[in-house]
Amino acid sequence: MDTVEKWGVFEVAANGHADKNPFVDYTIQGTFSGKNETVTVDGFYDGNGMYKVRFMPSFEGEYTYKVSGTFSEEPIAGNFTVTAPSKGNHGPVRVANTYHLAYEDRTPYYSVGTTCYVWTHQSEELQQKTLDTLRKGYFNKIRFCVFPKHYDYNLREPITYPFEGTPMDSSVLTKENFMDYEGAAEGNHWDFTRFNPVHFRLFEKRIQDLMEMGIEADLIILHPYDRWGFSEMDAESDDRYWNYVIARFAAYRNVWWSLANEFDIMKKKTLADWERYARIICERDPYNHLRSVHHCGQQYDYKRPWITHCSLQRIDRHQTTELTAEYAQRFQKPVIWDEIAYEGNINHCWGNISGQELVRRFWEATIRGGYAGHGETYMHPEDILWWSHGGELHGDSPERIKFLHRILCETPGLGLQPMSMPVYNRSNAFAWDDEVAVPVDGAYRGTYFLLYFGYFRPAFREYLLDNENEYEVEVIDTWEMTIKKAGTFKGKIHVDLPGKEYMAIRIRKVEH
Amino acid sequence: MDTVEKWGVFEVAANGHADKNPFVDYTIQGTFSGKNETVTVDGFYDGNGMYKVRFMPSFEGEYTYKVSGTFSEEPIAGNFTVTAPSKGNHGPVRVANTYHLAYEDRTPYYSVGTTCYVWTHQSEELQQKTLDTLRKGYFNKIRFCVFPKHYDYNLREPITYPFEGTPMDSSVLTKENFMDYEGAAEGNHWDFTRFNPVHFRLFEKRIQDLMEMGIEADLIILHPYDRWGFSEMDAESDDRYWNYVIARFAAYRNVWWSLANEFDIMKKKTLADWERYARIICERDPYNHLRSVHHCGQQYDYKRPWITHCSLQRIDRHQTTELTAEYAQRFQKPVIWDEIAYEGNINHCWGNISGQELVRRFWEATIRGGYAGHGETYMHPEDILWWSHGGELHGDSPERIKFLHRILCETPGLGLQPMSMPVYNRSNAFAWDDEVAVPVDGAYRGTYFLLYFGYFRPAFREYLLDNENEYEVEVIDTWEMTIKKAGTFKGKIHVDLPGKEYMAIRIRKVEH
Repeated sequence: MDTVEKWGVFEVAANGHADKNPFVDYTIQGTFSGKNETVTVDGFYDGNGMYKVRFMPSFEGEYTYKVSGTFSEEPIAGNFTVTAPSKGNHGPVRVANTYHLAYEDRTPYYSVGTTCYVWTHQSEELQQKTLDTLRKGYFNKIRFCVFPKHYDYNLREPITYPFEGTPMDSSVLTKENFMDYEGAAEGNHWDFTRFNPVHFRLFEKRIQDLMEMGIEADLIILHPYDRWGFSEMDAESDDRYWNYVIARFAAYRNVWWSLANEFDIMKKKTLADWERYARIICERDPYNHLRSVHHCGQQYDYKRPWITHCSLQRIDRHQTTELTAEYAQRFQKPVIWDEIAYEGNINHCWGNISGQELVRRFWEATIRGGYAGHGETYMHPEDILWWSHGGELHGDSPERIKFLHRILCETPGLGLQPMSMPVYNRSNAFAWDDEVAVPVDGAYRGTYFLLYFGYFRPAFREYLLDNENEYEVEVIDTWEMTIKKAGTFKGKIHVDLPGKEYMAIRIRKVEH
Repeated sequence: MDTVEKWGVFEVAANGHADKNPFVDYTIQGTFSGKNETVTVDGFYDGNGMYKVRFMPSFEGEYTYKVSGTFSEEPIAGNFTVTAPSKGNHGPVRVANTYHLAYEDRTPYYSVGTTCYVWTHQSEELQQKTLDTLRKGYFNKIRFCVFPKHYDYNLREPITYPFEGTPMDSSVLTKENFMDYEGAAEGNHWDFTRFNPVHFRLFEKRIQDLMEMGIEADLIILHPYDRWGFSEMDAESDDRYWNYVIARFAAYRNVWWSLANEFDIMKKKTLADWERYARIICERDPYNHLRSVHHCGQQYDYKRPWITHCSLQRIDRHQTTELTAEYAQRFQKPVIWDEIAYEGNINHCWGNISGQELVRRFWEATIRGGYAGHGETYMHPEDILWWSHGGELHGDSPERIKFLHRILCETPGLGLQPMSMPVYNRSNAFAWDDEVAVPVDGAYRGTYFLLYFGYFRPAFREYLLDNENEYEVEVIDTWEMTIKKAGTFKGKIHVDLPGKEYMAIRIRKVEH
């Protein structure tokens, strides 16, 4: 009998009608039933007369299934066993503790993301290089686009197109003129009713590669950087595309739905469009994958009930993740900063901060109970920039982000939240508070304090804790990635610091 | 015949009654008349039966004077000649071009200030060391207090007190308990009706030293850091003090009136008090020295007509001088950031940023048409911190501030203002603007552009200027203090940059 692990992908493939236009003229659905759930999902046409239905079981045990529709006159049925999840499979990521995230098995998920918009549209060789880089474990989320990208440093053709047809001639494009081709350019000839299964098959292979590495695939379904007209399809084509994408990808446990990158600069789309897409996802995705939409200058209303978390971009050149607590409070959802400028040196203002500054922004998000995202944009002789193309990393921040993630994983319970902590400051003269992150879970209150000083460089810090308990204090150099014991204290804690930037202090109650 | 240079101090000293309390029981005024002005000012009692009246002439030529009052039965009269100002004497600093400052002879004044709150209350040896440091020319303004200061790192006795009397016993003060003595502590015995002329004489000697060095004395008349009760005098004593201070100091051309440091944490003072002090200055200072008041958390209403410029403190840990243009626009006055955190490593959150960060804040103010102030707070074995005590500088920022000042002095006309400059950005793809500083004076528009990138590190920048004129482009490393010619351009300017932080570009039209 067939088996699949819990939160794995169970796929039923069947031959069916190949005449007319199978993408629109025939239907296929599957119903999957176990002791604890019955789920009906759409299948999809995968070309060459082949139809598929995918299902992600959420429980162990025996399941039956039935696949039906106009695709074939012979309905299909069968059964399979869902086994225990394998090591590293914790299920889909869910919102937890209001502002945080956890896998479905309650393992905390501390998001450290990166962005490689169109890494799956590059040569197979480059994609393998990207996978090799990702295997180093710097990140547990990656944002990337289903559609190819047209933008500065992004003029080459993708390896495949999402639809049947032919693209405009791009040989005339140069760095000097390429913006004349923004939007739906003449010269493109696409049949939006016929998807290119090769494109989607290659794409979902990468979703699966990421899944096996334990990396969440934050899928950008629409985006504005376009010379093919994919950003300007009519509503009917858009909706067909949404349904196809959901039918193909939803069964991968690591999928997140990002409706768009910079939705607000997609001039042809209205708020009603975005809300309609959201409704399609809510109706068609039976697994309730995380859903958000990423903005440029104008934030989406993250209070909308279908949005699971804020997917933010800095809206100010100088204030970024320092605003984390403010947004968390406003939207009452996890705050994920998917763009806070990238480590690099390109001309664009969002792509040339230092590794130090990027890591500082990660930490500023962290101690306010939020999460940040990485990107890298160093000039490259062949225009291979991690931010779009993947490949190799050249910057200093990834190792530090991994170090931060290691510290985050040592949080008691799930998630940190900001608190004010009075600085003892000798005689309490003109006392003020430091921002400190403490565990969200009440059971751990008073047992764990994480302080971060950013570009402030105090030579020492004093805090007054209670006289009853012992606290172990560590000095963390977030840039040098060292953790040094400063001692064990009762009552007044005095910590000497090196007077350097990017230092943190961790205080943990000693359990006897 | 007596002579004095224009904007110098002409002093008439005369013996008078020494009985009763000469500070309150006798009066003295002087009237000084030249062809272009007649000025009446109050004199003051300087102890030992000696009265003085001081006058700062604003015109060259012949003057007469009369001194009268109840101090003596014999009025005094005489005449003197006002000669041309000596080299380096440009007169008092005035507001110019709405947001900027110039000496009265129209020489631009680009403020680069520092803060040494109580340097004049330290030992003579330390004061001389401070003067030696100031002589190096890093700063052209210094903020300091008439009254002594009680605060963390500031527990020692001043060399003199402003009033007759005796202070509380401070030998019991430690870094652990000193805040129990905040405010008007018991144990102080002062006669607020009797000033201590020695205190004021030493103090004004320093004003004069600064004047001779071309440094503005931004005098802080009241402040809250107090164990002697000077911050909590009654209105009558306050007003007497204001009159005395003005009578003594106003004739020094380099005096600025800062009503208070952090006025909003002086709990015993009301808005009516501050406005009353302002009225006294406006009535009694015939020279219209610059007037402002410095805040802590709560800004003063800088729109008040008596305020000549904004004396700001950062009100956010992360946003400081980036807000310059916003405040300039709001208040329509020069914006001077007198506290934006100090270079150093002490525990206090305002006293431990790096030299790089402080200099960055100076430049961010500069390119938005404002001015910033320095301070230094490095831990010191004897608690000698420049910010309060003066002495030697240990930081990296002063040389860079001097370098910035040199560049500011090369501004055509008077003052810079922010403008948006489209980044050419190759094909104008997704174009945005850089902030650029340009001359305020219309005659120089289009001839001078100063761009600053702060922590952004673009590898290149392109701008589109006109094809008619030639422009010389320089790359400025604001930290390394180098200025390198990048070439001369027409039309499109392409500038390669080193991909480092703290770079600037200067573009100047070539005049044929």
